[in-house]
Amino acid sequence: MEQFQLCPKFEKAMKLLGKRWTGLIIYQLLFGPQRFSEIESSLPVSGRLLSERLKELEEEGLVNRHVYAEVPVRVEYSLTDKGRELQPIIKGIENWSDRWVESSEQ
Amino acid sequence: MEQFQLCPKFEKAMKLLGKRWTGLIIYQLLFGPQRFSEIESSLPVSGRLLSERLKELEEEGLVNRHVYAEVPVRVEYSLTDKGRELQPIIKGIENWSDRWVESSEQ
Repeated sequence: MEQFQLCPKFEKAMKLLGKRWTGLIIYQLLFGPQRFSEIESSLPVSGRLLSERLKELEEEGLVNRHVYAEVPVRVEYSLTDKGRELQPIIKGIENWSDRWVESSEQ
Repeated sequence: MEQFQLCPKFEKAMKLLGKRWTGLIIYQLLFGPQRFSEIESSLPVSGRLLSERLKELEEEGLVNRHVYAEVPVRVEYSLTDKGRELQPIIKGIENWSDRWVESSEQ
C-alpha cells in the first residue's frame, strides 16, 4: 500500500511541476543565478506570467530572490537546494521528450 | 538557444505528466500489466476518471490496452516502451517529493 501514502506528496509535486513554464524556468535556473531580464529573454514567456511563476516558486521554496542594493536595483533569482535537486528529473524529462515527443505534434 | 527548440516538446511532456492521476497511473503500471479493476483498487480515483486517463494515455502511445476474448471479457493495460521509459522520471519525482514535500501540506 506504499502508493497510497505516496499519493498526496507525489500529486503535489506533479501539480507544481506540471504548471505551464514552471519546468522551463527551473531548467533555465539550473544554468546558475539569473536576473529577471535574463530569464525573460531566454524563454518565450510574458513578463507578467514569468513574474507570477517566480513568485509561486519562491513561495514553494524552490527559488531564492536576492535583491542587491544597487542603483538601479538588481534582483537575482537562484535555485534553492529543493529546486536544484529537481535537476535529474528535469534532465530526464528533457531526454524523454526529445526521444518520444514528435516535433510535428508541436 | 537549445532551450528554445526544447520548449514545445518539453512543455508537451510536462502537460501530459502534470495531469492529475496520470503520474500515479504510470507509477502503478510500472509494477506490470494490470486489469482495470486492479488499477482502480490501487488508487483513490473514480472509475470514470481512471477510464478517461487510460484512454488519453493510450492515445498518447504510453499505454497498451489488450482485450482477451474470454467470458467474461478480460481487459489488461500495460506500458509501452514510451511509457516504460518514464520510470526514472517517476521514481525521481517520488524520491524528490518524499524528501521535500511536507506531509502537513497535503
